[in-house]
Amino acid sequence: MTESTPPAIPQLIALDWGTSSLRAFLMRDGDVLEVRQSRHGIQNLPVPGIAGFENAFAQIAGEWLVRWPGLPVVASGMVGSAQGWREAPYVRCPATIDNLAEQGVTVPCGLGVDILIAPGVLFDEPDELPDVMRGEEIQIAGALLQEPSWNRRSCVVLPGTHSKWVRFEEGRLLRYSTYLTGELFAVLSKHSILGRLMPEGTQGNHGPDVVAFELGLATARDSRPGDLTHQVFATRTLGLTHRLPAEALADYLSGLLIGHELVSALAGLGNAADAPLVMIGDPALCERYVYSLKYLGKAADAVLDNTAPTGLWAFAHAAGLIGDANP
Amino acid sequence: MTESTPPAIPQLIALDWGTSSLRAFLMRDGDVLEVRQSRHGIQNLPVPGIAGFENAFAQIAGEWLVRWPGLPVVASGMVGSAQGWREAPYVRCPATIDNLAEQGVTVPCGLGVDILIAPGVLFDEPDELPDVMRGEEIQIAGALLQEPSWNRRSCVVLPGTHSKWVRFEEGRLLRYSTYLTGELFAVLSKHSILGRLMPEGTQGNHGPDVVAFELGLATARDSRPGDLTHQVFATRTLGLTHRLPAEALADYLSGLLIGHELVSALAGLGNAADAPLVMIGDPALCERYVYSLKYLGKAADAVLDNTAPTGLWAFAHAAGLIGDANP
Repeated sequence: MTESTPPAIPQLIALDWGTSSLRAFLMRDGDVLEVRQSRHGIQNLPVPGIAGFENAFAQIAGEWLVRWPGLPVVASGMVGSAQGWREAPYVRCPATIDNLAEQGVTVPCGLGVDILIAPGVLFDEPDELPDVMRGEEIQIAGALLQEPSWNRRSCVVLPGTHSKWVRFEEGRLLRYSTYLTGELFAVLSKHSILGRLMPEGTQGNHGPDVVAFELGLATARDSRPGDLTHQVFATRTLGLTHRLPAEALADYLSGLLIGHELVSALAGLGNAADAPLVMIGDPALCERYVYSLKYLGKAADAVLDNTAPTGLWAFAHAAGLIGDANP
Repeated sequence: MTESTPPAIPQLIALDWGTSSLRAFLMRDGDVLEVRQSRHGIQNLPVPGIAGFENAFAQIAGEWLVRWPGLPVVASGMVGSAQGWREAPYVRCPATIDNLAEQGVTVPCGLGVDILIAPGVLFDEPDELPDVMRGEEIQIAGALLQEPSWNRRSCVVLPGTHSKWVRFEEGRLLRYSTYLTGELFAVLSKHSILGRLMPEGTQGNHGPDVVAFELGLATARDSRPGDLTHQVFATRTLGLTHRLPAEALADYLSGLLIGHELVSALAGLGNAADAPLVMIGDPALCERYVYSLKYLGKAADAVLDNTAPTGLWAFAHAAGLIGDANP
């Protein structure tokens, strides 16, 4: 008989459970052994109510629990919102990973173990606009586990539907701001007069028209307070006057909206302007943001893709759920 | 027999023909003798194509032409767009009422007379975003006919779906800027996550929640370039944190978007900052704008309701169409 490596025994089931999708990770020592994905986001459950959550969980992770009974399970994202399986109330800024672990809530999964759901993070200070996140705090924890020096001081950017700019200091999530950039692009393209001149298929993640995209960035860079709703209307007039081809109008709008986000967020960095800037998100979108940052004279220090599983690992570890798999 | 005043003989049929409605005015000496309204805007014609325009016109004004054959007919608005009855190409800034009259286009109405359609006005200068208007130039002509001193120097504001800020000097429409304010409010309320916390019926023209509306205005007033898409997201977080009641969220958003328009447009007035500020539009919306201007330390010098018929009269007069009704 030849020697063989014994199969790795998993230590954790980690769930990244959002509005429109559910991903499950079987993990050991911070690494993903196996990943499964389903369309059972919290707004797309197989049946309504609690049974829907139990059913979706059993479909995606039931086999794992049959094979390794008693594995700890953690979850993050909208599953912990008021519309989720069980509400995990927000932790206030400044927040540490230990705060998140302490204030997680548990819910019976229906298969004999509890699931620990991570809370979101609330920013709510007098004389400032409040802000909320749910899910991003775990992605950030994943990034910090990859490069612990970022715990000391960093700015973490998560571009997307609701982009987040997050300041981290001494292991604490200090403050952050959300920008409606991605959703604003989507509703203007689909539901406003601006979309009428855009041909089908030019609003997605194709390679951008650089001239149009940079015109949007330059317009944002040179803008004064309040100018955006005028500059947005130019998506139409640049088309009507044939200054830009119809296929490029979506890229003008994209550059304009990303540019406004960057101009505001970079100005808001204050004394964190020289901290490492870490970006987490979809690679194509991150590429657009890195390009835009560079256009505005700023470099990204790191770009990371999916940090949710690592973050869930850090969350489970902080909650004391990671046992020794080989005692 | 007693003496009786002979009925006034009309001199003009004037059409204000937009996207969603059609209004017809029977006029004499600049006054409206009779007004009719239909839902046959250019996107809602009784039958498709040219026949739809002829049919809609015959329904609203056919009787008048039977009674007074040969009355001149003028029209303004989207009826002259590329999607209209006949396209009346844009006149470039700076534009006078005579430029508009000279460059109107005619189309046979189907009942024996031609209709003179007013062109829109294009602003298209190098190194500036282009802009278009169609219909507002006639409303402005109406305001200037009411108070000729505004011809010399004025700023005319037309709040609405696509708000216009127009500078007038020495009888010339010098330049203007469009803000997508009204449409942005509508698409964000109806189609984005921001509308989810707004109860039904709080997005209309009810009396505003003053605290929420002024929070929006103050936020706009204190903003730096690019801040809008962050401040817009607060429509949601102010509700989630119960800083504002759900019924007031639409008013925060309204104040924020109107405030951004005003901050930008007032800064853009330049050396016209002391010119009379004349507002034209729906009275309830104008009231909101006047309130917001005052909040920002600026007064409106006049607020006018429907100036389109007077403007169409001025346009017809400039085109030499007004005959002497009692030779």
